[in-house]
Amino acid sequence: MTHTLISPLDMHLHLRDEEMLNLVAPLSAYGFAGAIVMPNLVPPITTIEAVLAYKERIVRAIGQNHFEPLMTLFFRSDYTREFLEKAALHVKALKLYPSGITTNSEGGVASMDIELLRPVLEAMSDLGLVLCVHGETNGFVMDREKEFVSIYESLAEAFPKLKIVMEHITTQESVALLDRYENLYATVTLHHLLITLDDVAGGMLQPHLFCKPIAKRYEDREALLHVSLAAHPKVMFGSDSAPHPIHKKECCGCAAGVFTAPIALQVLTELFDKHNALASLQAFVSNNAQTIYGYKALHKEVILEKTPMKVTHAYGNVVPMFANETLAWSIQHVV
Amino acid sequence: MTHTLISPLDMHLHLRDEEMLNLVAPLSAYGFAGAIVMPNLVPPITTIEAVLAYKERIVRAIGQNHFEPLMTLFFRSDYTREFLEKAALHVKALKLYPSGITTNSEGGVASMDIELLRPVLEAMSDLGLVLCVHGETNGFVMDREKEFVSIYESLAEAFPKLKIVMEHITTQESVALLDRYENLYATVTLHHLLITLDDVAGGMLQPHLFCKPIAKRYEDREALLHVSLAAHPKVMFGSDSAPHPIHKKECCGCAAGVFTAPIALQVLTELFDKHNALASLQAFVSNNAQTIYGYKALHKEVILEKTPMKVTHAYGNVVPMFANETLAWSIQHVV
Repeated sequence: MTHTLISPLDMHLHLRDEEMLNLVAPLSAYGFAGAIVMPNLVPPITTIEAVLAYKERIVRAIGQNHFEPLMTLFFRSDYTREFLEKAALHVKALKLYPSGITTNSEGGVASMDIELLRPVLEAMSDLGLVLCVHGETNGFVMDREKEFVSIYESLAEAFPKLKIVMEHITTQESVALLDRYENLYATVTLHHLLITLDDVAGGMLQPHLFCKPIAKRYEDREALLHVSLAAHPKVMFGSDSAPHPIHKKECCGCAAGVFTAPIALQVLTELFDKHNALASLQAFVSNNAQTIYGYKALHKEVILEKTPMKVTHAYGNVVPMFANETLAWSIQHVV
Repeated sequence: MTHTLISPLDMHLHLRDEEMLNLVAPLSAYGFAGAIVMPNLVPPITTIEAVLAYKERIVRAIGQNHFEPLMTLFFRSDYTREFLEKAALHVKALKLYPSGITTNSEGGVASMDIELLRPVLEAMSDLGLVLCVHGETNGFVMDREKEFVSIYESLAEAFPKLKIVMEHITTQESVALLDRYENLYATVTLHHLLITLDDVAGGMLQPHLFCKPIAKRYEDREALLHVSLAAHPKVMFGSDSAPHPIHKKECCGCAAGVFTAPIALQVLTELFDKHNALASLQAFVSNNAQTIYGYKALHKEVILEKTPMKVTHAYGNVVPMFANETLAWSIQHVV
């Protein structure tokens, strides 16, 4: 049994830089046709020069793979319209982080006051630049995303023409926003379709499943699964695959992030197959994203087959999700 | 500035066995006059011979310290009244674990059906044996203790003469039970007075603060603090100090437990001092427990002084809470 995906896209990906970039970029570039690449490097990507230089390093790292990195800028409220006009030639989106909310987000916005953000968001809206948001407050860890709902509502109402992507949503409240605001969209990760807080901290503590936003409750996972399996047109796959070296995961004070890039398409196929929803997968992993971002992906055919695949214990020094486990589907070949 | 505690007691302590016992027992025995010692060894303590042999190993491990181990049996629903009559000469309490709920609890009760437990609980009630309960269901990790409330209610109603200790409570719902049922009591740990889930998983993941029950919300910590600082007469200090070797904490699949025994009295003094509640500490760490358990502790005077103490990075291969940090109070001497 095989299943073919055309031009799968990862609409939220961390490729990092230097050695780590060289390790992980080919793993994404093998199966995916493109990815929205996050700009939270150290220092963050805030200039056109930095975008172009990073893109060049990515292109070098992916080697012969047929893959298009879709670049983003790290959101700053002091960008000028002139700058954004030029940037719009090179980036698809700006990624907004509340300051300090996740890995390398220290330079993010200190306040979500709409008036402070207005000049940049109006320019983005006019220029057709997408706003990608890490939507968490600095409240109690299980409430951070829910507390951000009112901020999403304010943003959606204040900038009705701006496309706003709620990144890596994890709650039923975020899901509910999709049908209430025309200009709110969402990415959903693989791991949030699979795990709850019970998997992270309900038995032994599992640092490799620790991520931000943290995995929530069963009813939240249900809500995410529901819109993903139904190929809700405003929902896109975005892995948030976030590699950390093993010594930053199995330690005292572990970094947040789940590394899923090399196994994402296989596990998604298994999951959608299990739910008799394989027919929805193409929309979830590619078509919806192309429509939302108004962009035509590189053509690539990924043929998956229902043949077991043993996941390695580590790619270099990075432990993937499902390390040492066997998946039901594997990638047979890529055209 | 000094503060003297008379015969501090730790009403919930894990001393483990063999090398670990030899490492941790003296650390508790130095500052505490006694402790309720948990029976969840491998295999668990279920016979009088095992109780006496374990007590002997503990006494050997504590060396010259003036310290009384208060022994417990691992609850089994098939104990006979005859057995419990003999056991009552050697143990103060039975510890009930729902099967599989925490470290070494696999042999716990598979069902909390009152009728199945009735023969043993009636005998315990008649014999004045205390029932110590790990009160968690196998539900969602943040709800497990709250879901156990109805079980505590059923137990308290069905056995009105049985003293039931809700161990290491972490929620405001458990606190509220104290004033609703005459025969419900509670132990509170040091770490649950200090941390919430935010400290475990709100920033970087902190395996050394991972415990069961998992730390909850701010309002839960407030409720615990409130009754502890007020020396509520039904609340006792029980550290649940649970040593694990470092390779079982800083790893992939980390064990639950916070090791607080060697720093508990110092930190409690700091905490109660900060809240202008030093006058309550004696009741919280000793007097309440003696009244509840109907027992006279060994006499011991622990003189603490407000002199900084640097906590070591590790005791043997066990990392304590506040490792490498400096506490405001230290133990000056013990008489």
